[in-house]
Amino acid sequence: MGKSNLDLLNELDRFPYYENNPAFYTAHLKNYHAFMVNGCDAVLGYILNSVVAKFHWPAQYWAVDSTNQTVTLTTAADATPEQRSKALAETLTGEAKQDNFEILKGWRNEMYAVYAPGGKLLLEMERCASPLFGIVSYGVHGTCYVEDEQGLHFWVPRRARSKQTYPGMLDNSVAGGMSTTEHPFLCLIREASEEASLPEDVVKACAKPVGCISYFYVRDSRAGGETDLLQPEVEYVYDIKLSRDVVPKPGDNEVEEFKLYTVEETKHALAAGEFKPNCAVVFLDFFIRHGILTAENEPNYLEILTRMHRRFEFPTASHFTN
Amino acid sequence: MGKSNLDLLNELDRFPYYENNPAFYTAHLKNYHAFMVNGCDAVLGYILNSVVAKFHWPAQYWAVDSTNQTVTLTTAADATPEQRSKALAETLTGEAKQDNFEILKGWRNEMYAVYAPGGKLLLEMERCASPLFGIVSYGVHGTCYVEDEQGLHFWVPRRARSKQTYPGMLDNSVAGGMSTTEHPFLCLIREASEEASLPEDVVKACAKPVGCISYFYVRDSRAGGETDLLQPEVEYVYDIKLSRDVVPKPGDNEVEEFKLYTVEETKHALAAGEFKPNCAVVFLDFFIRHGILTAENEPNYLEILTRMHRRFEFPTASHFTN
Repeated sequence: MGKSNLDLLNELDRFPYYENNPAFYTAHLKNYHAFMVNGCDAVLGYILNSVVAKFHWPAQYWAVDSTNQTVTLTTAADATPEQRSKALAETLTGEAKQDNFEILKGWRNEMYAVYAPGGKLLLEMERCASPLFGIVSYGVHGTCYVEDEQGLHFWVPRRARSKQTYPGMLDNSVAGGMSTTEHPFLCLIREASEEASLPEDVVKACAKPVGCISYFYVRDSRAGGETDLLQPEVEYVYDIKLSRDVVPKPGDNEVEEFKLYTVEETKHALAAGEFKPNCAVVFLDFFIRHGILTAENEPNYLEILTRMHRRFEFPTASHFTN
Repeated sequence: MGKSNLDLLNELDRFPYYENNPAFYTAHLKNYHAFMVNGCDAVLGYILNSVVAKFHWPAQYWAVDSTNQTVTLTTAADATPEQRSKALAETLTGEAKQDNFEILKGWRNEMYAVYAPGGKLLLEMERCASPLFGIVSYGVHGTCYVEDEQGLHFWVPRRARSKQTYPGMLDNSVAGGMSTTEHPFLCLIREASEEASLPEDVVKACAKPVGCISYFYVRDSRAGGETDLLQPEVEYVYDIKLSRDVVPKPGDNEVEEFKLYTVEETKHALAAGEFKPNCAVVFLDFFIRHGILTAENEPNYLEILTRMHRRFEFPTASHFTN
């Protein structure tokens, strides 16, 4: 008995829903402090109480209110994103030196953005710290596939066994996190080059934006670092239809190899739990959009479809460029 | 200045969200009684307090609890769906005779299903009464399109000006409500024949299930009958790619005519508010899945995508047939 498609989603979208059980949800929130920024009404993420207690909050930048369970960055209400980001950078550099959090040992020098209501940039912070604050993160996932007289096949890479997170698991053809200044399609082009050696002109000609998935992940041991940290995520999804002569190749040491999988082989690997959790759900989204999973053959069709498009209690980005 | 895509969604998905403002949401719920069935823990729909007060609830079938704001069908906990449906039918037939509710004058002799958690059938009720109980209803929407060297075009029908609901507005090529015993794809085949004169073999060959949209509609005057009644809805969505020689034709008197619209003409008609609200959102879903609306050209991309896949506080159907 392998994993059902709902099992796969349950592994990814793990934070409780208010509507399932309002009393449980409200009680569960007591495990967290709300991450706030002076001058912005919205809650930007949830910080585990145990993290709040262990973290060193420099008093010139932070106010911790244990009654209302908030942690507020106290920079001026009209501070610029740069000023807020500087306060965060100082805080996080200081914290990393204390060797207090396993997750901060994964320092990447890559910045993730936090947005105010309406999608405006509020601040940025070092990527590896984002699960400590429970902020929404953004990425891209592209599925390279071939569809011809031999049927539908997917280009599936296996993650290097040396990778810090989810070593040896199956992945999406192209996937990666979006840094602050990036826009989704440009991020896809960069990742497709780095991870799959696909040239820009091929990606521009063959990749189609087809939506996004969003889910509220709660980190387990496979993600590395402290467990139970929150990671609400949005992944912009692309279908990349390739002709059979275009073969993705590992472009860095993050990927071991690419193999062509049939739909049946992919379903089998999904049920066997071989895919990284969010990659599994990107496949479920592909299967739904391409008529492979239907209301008639998937008992939890509506639950899967609505939960893989979770709307967060936090403001999210607008990547509008026009 | 026409309507934005978010405006179009706001017209359809109108019930408040808990996460936007928990206090407002909780206060808003005080306007409703929860529709319950003895033997089932779940809330199945919300009934406006004014409807509860005006409706005649036969005491042999119903318990109205004004403290907890519930209206409960008191059939035995282990009653069959048929027994519950019979109690509802008697109640509704009686109520319709009173001429108390405008909406009950639209009696259709068509049954809508209510599901228990897990998707099992709980009972069925006359279609026109469903907004009085605020239960989730189900339908299908198919978009007929042509994509060839002349570009992408949609077959867009105009609703008959004599129609009870949304007269004269633009519609999706194929759309209709799903009765109790129907499954989505069979419903699509029926509606495609009735409304667009498309033969079954054409639909089977050309229609692809591509997901669903779901939204919490609050009825306005264009829907007919009492306003402010709740109508949470799931629409199974199909792309129907036709060759240029297949021309949909009105099959009944519900549709005035079909015309081929370019993408630009469709966008223009959307912004002008010419489409029935849920048909507009089916087009937004098509545009997103086909890369016409993107994160880069739609400022509210994430809000639109997550809200058009709303997860309800009520149990929903499983149309699994395997």
